[in-house]
Amino acid sequence: MECGLLFSAGKDSSLSALLLENFYDVKLVTAHFGITDDWQYARDTAEALGFPFERIQLSDGIATDVTARMREDGFPRSGIQSVHEAALEAAAAEYDVVADGTRRDDRVPTISRAVAQSLEDRYGVDYIAPLSGFGRGAIDRLVEEHLIVESGASETVQKGDYETELRARIESRWGRDAVEEIFPDHEQTRVIGRT
Amino acid sequence: MECGLLFSAGKDSSLSALLLENFYDVKLVTAHFGITDDWQYARDTAEALGFPFERIQLSDGIATDVTARMREDGFPRSGIQSVHEAALEAAAAEYDVVADGTRRDDRVPTISRAVAQSLEDRYGVDYIAPLSGFGRGAIDRLVEEHLIVESGASETVQKGDYETELRARIESRWGRDAVEEIFPDHEQTRVIGRT
Repeated sequence: MECGLLFSAGKDSSLSALLLENFYDVKLVTAHFGITDDWQYARDTAEALGFPFERIQLSDGIATDVTARMREDGFPRSGIQSVHEAALEAAAAEYDVVADGTRRDDRVPTISRAVAQSLEDRYGVDYIAPLSGFGRGAIDRLVEEHLIVESGASETVQKGDYETELRARIESRWGRDAVEEIFPDHEQTRVIGRT
Repeated sequence: MECGLLFSAGKDSSLSALLLENFYDVKLVTAHFGITDDWQYARDTAEALGFPFERIQLSDGIATDVTARMREDGFPRSGIQSVHEAALEAAAAEYDVVADGTRRDDRVPTISRAVAQSLEDRYGVDYIAPLSGFGRGAIDRLVEEHLIVESGASETVQKGDYETELRARIESRWGRDAVEEIFPDHEQTRVIGRT
């Protein structure tokens, strides 16, 4: 059975792919807005991990709305949550099984049991969050054992997810200071292969 | 890394074992009270699935307390929850990683994020619930694809978990009618192998 797994080239979605690979035909799906070509980093990581890749383009209106909300909030949380849900819905329109890398201790994005059930009912899909039963320590140890990760400032380590594009959109609308204010933590990690 | 997975020979704990087997040295752990020899069914299923097996004996005082509570409640939920938590704690005292088969849609036993975190902090372990990101439909389809299951009335299909023993204890203390009242649903399933 094919499973469309939302993929950012980060640790959580990469580990999720490994957890599901013996149970589904996993396809790594990167949602993007067409603002930059950063989705190519996700494609490269997908290839390095040995999975087929697809990108799904979300409407530019969503990027406009959520960047405005992030700017107003002063932090990205609620905007990221909206984009993540939109990405899940776009994947659910294409796949019978959709998955993501949300984990037990995540604060955002987070998919409650009610949101999961609603997605499943509205689209007739299974929604799977393979890391939602894993805590931080267990995930760190599994990542260490199974994945090769590079980390550094967000300028040098590019992931392939929509967050990079939203930063770019915020910079073009309100300048570099707005990006710094909304995303104070610059540390990024990207998976580049399996151990 | 060795992982002690609470095991009943049922679908959920068996599927959990399959999900974890490429990431941990999974040992199937059946908690029992020494009331009956039904733990042997769990041992047989563990062997059929190809996993090492261990039984952990819980104190008889727990069986006495929870059967009294079940009798008073008229339903097993709160008692089952207590025994499950006691079994997790017993496993956490022996293993660095403990796991169980609780799923997203379970009502009992259920391990909240707070209970999971508390278990991890008190025992210095990782607690993993590999099915907690899977809904009912996804689990049914994976079980169908990967496991051979027999089902029937609880008199004919014996699992190896503490529930069977608690029924026996209730019957010996208050008679067969009390068992029927507390556990009206007799349908049981037991995994007997891999497809």
